[in-house]
Amino acid sequence: MSDQAAIGLIGLGTMGANLALNIAEAGHRIAVHNRSPDKTRAFHEQAGALRDRIVPTETLEDLVDALASPRTILMMVPAGAPVADQIDALVPLLAEGDILIDGGNSDWTDSRDRATALGDRGIGFLGLGVSGGAEGARHGPSLMAGGHEAAWAAAETVLTSIAARFGDVPCAAYFGDGGAGHYVKTVHNGIEYADMQMIAEIYGLMRDGQGRTAADISAVFDRWNGAALESYLVEIAAEVAAVIDPATGRPILDVIADRAGQKGTGRWTVMDAQRRAAPLPAVEAAVTARVLSGEAALRAEGEHLFPESDALPPLTDAELEGALIAGKILAYSQGFTLLSVARGEEGWIMPLDTVARTWRAGCIIRSAMLDDMATALEEGTCARPLAFAPTFAERLRAHVPALRRVVAAAVAAGLPVPALSAALQHFDQLRQSRGTANMIQALRDRFGAHGFERTDRPGEGGQHGPWVATDGSA
Amino acid sequence: MSDQAAIGLIGLGTMGANLALNIAEAGHRIAVHNRSPDKTRAFHEQAGALRDRIVPTETLEDLVDALASPRTILMMVPAGAPVADQIDALVPLLAEGDILIDGGNSDWTDSRDRATALGDRGIGFLGLGVSGGAEGARHGPSLMAGGHEAAWAAAETVLTSIAARFGDVPCAAYFGDGGAGHYVKTVHNGIEYADMQMIAEIYGLMRDGQGRTAADISAVFDRWNGAALESYLVEIAAEVAAVIDPATGRPILDVIADRAGQKGTGRWTVMDAQRRAAPLPAVEAAVTARVLSGEAALRAEGEHLFPESDALPPLTDAELEGALIAGKILAYSQGFTLLSVARGEEGWIMPLDTVARTWRAGCIIRSAMLDDMATALEEGTCARPLAFAPTFAERLRAHVPALRRVVAAAVAAGLPVPALSAALQHFDQLRQSRGTANMIQALRDRFGAHGFERTDRPGEGGQHGPWVATDGSA
Repeated sequence: MSDQAAIGLIGLGTMGANLALNIAEAGHRIAVHNRSPDKTRAFHEQAGALRDRIVPTETLEDLVDALASPRTILMMVPAGAPVADQIDALVPLLAEGDILIDGGNSDWTDSRDRATALGDRGIGFLGLGVSGGAEGARHGPSLMAGGHEAAWAAAETVLTSIAARFGDVPCAAYFGDGGAGHYVKTVHNGIEYADMQMIAEIYGLMRDGQGRTAADISAVFDRWNGAALESYLVEIAAEVAAVIDPATGRPILDVIADRAGQKGTGRWTVMDAQRRAAPLPAVEAAVTARVLSGEAALRAEGEHLFPESDALPPLTDAELEGALIAGKILAYSQGFTLLSVARGEEGWIMPLDTVARTWRAGCIIRSAMLDDMATALEEGTCARPLAFAPTFAERLRAHVPALRRVVAAAVAAGLPVPALSAALQHFDQLRQSRGTANMIQALRDRFGAHGFERTDRPGEGGQHGPWVATDGSA
Repeated sequence: MSDQAAIGLIGLGTMGANLALNIAEAGHRIAVHNRSPDKTRAFHEQAGALRDRIVPTETLEDLVDALASPRTILMMVPAGAPVADQIDALVPLLAEGDILIDGGNSDWTDSRDRATALGDRGIGFLGLGVSGGAEGARHGPSLMAGGHEAAWAAAETVLTSIAARFGDVPCAAYFGDGGAGHYVKTVHNGIEYADMQMIAEIYGLMRDGQGRTAADISAVFDRWNGAALESYLVEIAAEVAAVIDPATGRPILDVIADRAGQKGTGRWTVMDAQRRAAPLPAVEAAVTARVLSGEAALRAEGEHLFPESDALPPLTDAELEGALIAGKILAYSQGFTLLSVARGEEGWIMPLDTVARTWRAGCIIRSAMLDDMATALEEGTCARPLAFAPTFAERLRAHVPALRRVVAAAVAAGLPVPALSAALQHFDQLRQSRGTANMIQALRDRFGAHGFERTDRPGEGGQHGPWVATDGSA
C-alpha cells in the first residue's frame, strides 16, 4: 500500500509537468501519464531529486493501478474535446468513489455538465481553475475549485499543499458545485484582460503622447509597483519595458508586434456577463482591443484616412498613476459584481472575500490591493459594488479626478483608452440618480407602446404618453 | 377556388392584427385565426370596409381549409416556445410545399433550426423580421426575410405589397437561408439601441449640463431632424420632448421614470458579436446603460457617495449635432461590419447595400442617412468598414472633432456618455497603425510563454523574449 501514489496526473505539457513536480516536491507520491510514453519517460528522467516520488506509467490501466484507493486523477489536457475524451477513456477503469479533477481552462458550463454526468455514475469530479502560468504551476498556483464537495474534501490536502500562500493562507478554495471553480477562473481571466489593457493604455499615453522611451516607462512602472499599484502585472510591465532585444539592441517592446492573442476566456466572461445582465464594460473593452489588435491592415488604412492628432495635454505621472488605480478598482468592482450575480443565480457558496483571498498570491492578477479587497468584501454586503465599500470609495474620490483628466486628455489627442474610458463611463452612470433612460422609454412608448413608469406613481408600470391610443390597439 | 385565401395569419395581437389589415388593404384575401375565437370574431367585426377580404376561422383545421394551395401561413405569436408549439400544431395539417412564416422577434438560431427541421418534412419556412411597431405593421413595415428561397419566391408578392416603400422601392428583401432574416432584424435592433442611447446622452448633456428645458431640447432635435440627422428617432425625440403631461402640466419627459426596458434583442446582438469576434462597443454600451437604468437604488447610493461634479464646459448646438452625427455613423459602421462577418461565416447572400435599403423606410431606425449608406455600401467592398467609405470618411473628418469635444467635456463634468464614448474609442483604435498590444503580448509571453510576432520578422509567430527559457519548458 505504501507504494501506491496519492494522486495521478495525466498530461505532461508545461502546466502538467510543473504541477507534477510541485506535487512531488510537496511530499506526495504521484503517478504520471502522457499520451506519448516517451514524454513520460523523459519527464521522469529529468525530475532529478524528485524522481523517487514520481511513478511513470505507460497506459491508463497502469496509471489507475498505481493509485491508492479512492483514486484521484488530475487531468491537465487541453479544454474541450480532449477533456471529454480523457474522461470517456478513464471512466471504465474507475470504481465508485474515485475522483477526476479537470485542471485545464475549461468552459464552466462543461464542468457543470461533467459534474452531473460523473456524479450519476458515482465518480467524484472537480473543475479546478489553475492560475499562475508555468511558474505558478511549479512553485505555487492559485487554485479555484468547484464540483462535488466530497471530492474537494478528499483532494483538499494535496491541492492546498501545492498552492501559493499569502502569508500563511493557501490560495486554494472550493467555491461550490458544478462549474463554480472554472467560473471563478474565467472571471479572474476577464479581470486580467482589463488589468493588462489598462496598463497598455497608460503605456501608450507615455509612449505616443509623451514621447518617452521604454526605459523611462519601465522606471515609472517600477516606482508604481512600490506603492498602491504593487502587483505582479505592474512588476513585469516594468521588467519587460527594461529588456533590450539581443538581436537588435533595441528595447524589446519596440520590436514586439502590436497583436495580442486570446484563448477565449475573456470572451466567455463578457458573454456570460451579458447573459446575466451584469455587464463588464472594462473587460468588454479589453476583449475588443485584442480583436482590433489583430486588424493591422485595417488600422493602417484608418490612420491613413484619419491622420488628425492633437498634442496630448500635459499629464503628470501622479495623474497617470491615479488613473490606473481608479480604473483598476472599477474593473475589479465590475468583476466582483458579476461573481455576486452568478453566485445568486447558480446557488454557489463562493464568498467574495474568499475569492479575493484566493487571488492574492499565485495567480496573474495577484496584488497588494486584493488583500484590501478581501477585507472590504468581508465587511460589505455582497449586493453592493466593491467600489462603494468605504475604503475603496475613499480611494475613488481621491483618484477618479485623475482618471477624468487622463481620459479627457486622451480623447482630445485621439489616443485610445477604451478600458479606462469604459470603466469611467460605467462609474458615472452608477452615480447618476436621475439618468436619461426616460428619453429612451418615451421613445419606446411612442413607437411601440412599451409603456413606462411615472416618477409620481412609482411601481406602476405600463403608463403611456398621450401619443398612445388607449383603446387597446397599443 | 376564388373563395380561398391567399394567405393565413395566426395571432391577432397588435402586430398580427395590424398586419392582417395591411394585407387585406393591399387587396389579398386573408384567413385569420387566434387561440381565442372571440378575439378572431371581434377582429373581423371591427375590420370595417376590409371585412369582405378577411375570413375568420375558429380552428386551425378551418384555417388550413380556407387557404389556396400551396398554403402560406404567417405566424404572429410570441417568440420562443409559442412559435415552436404553433409549428408542432400546424405541421400535421399541412401538405408538402406549404409554407410557414414566423413573423415574431425570434432568435435567429431558432429560425435556422426550424428551417432545417421543416425543410426535412417538405414544408417551406421563412423567418421574417418585421420592424416598424404597430404603425409600421398597419401601414408598411420593413421586412427582413430568411429561410427557404422557394418559400420567399412564393410569398414575395404578398410580402412586398404590404411593405414600406422608399420612393418606389419596397423595404422587403430575402437575405439568405436559415435565420438570415431574423439575424438582420436582430442587428437592426442592436443599432436601434445605440441610436436611442446616443440621443439620450445628448439629451442628458442639454438637460443636466446646460440646464435646458424639455421644450428647448425639443426645438433643437426638431432643427436637427431637418438636416443631416433626419430620421424617425430624432423626429419622435423632438415630439416627445414637446409633450406636456395632462396630469401634472409638466413636460412628460420630466415625469417618465429613467428606467428603460429591453426584450433581449440588443443583448443577443452583442453576444453574437462577441462570439464572432466582431464586437459592437456602441451597442454594448447601450445595452449596459439599459441594465444600469434598472438599478435606481444603487445609482442613488452612488450619487450620495460620489457627488462631485464640475460644470460642463461650453458646447454649442452645432458641436452636439456633430457628435451625434459622428457617433451614429460609427455605430452603424460597427453594425454593418458585424453583418459582413456573419454573412461570411453563415454563407448568406445578404448584400449590405440591400440591408441598408430595406431599413430606409418602415423600420424604427429609418433615416435619410441610410440611403447614403446604401449607396456607399454598394460602391465599397464589404470587408471595409462603412466608416472608411469616402462619403462617410469625409463626414467623420468633419464631425469627429465635435465628438471629441463633447466626450471630453462630458468626462470632465462627470456626465455619462457611454455609447458616444465607446464609438469614439473604437474609432481611435481603428486609426492607430501601431497600437499598444505589444505591451500585452510582452506580458503574456513573460508570464505564460504565449509567444509574439516580431516587427522585423512579420508572419513568424511564436517568438519569445529573453525572459523565456528556450529549452521547451515554456
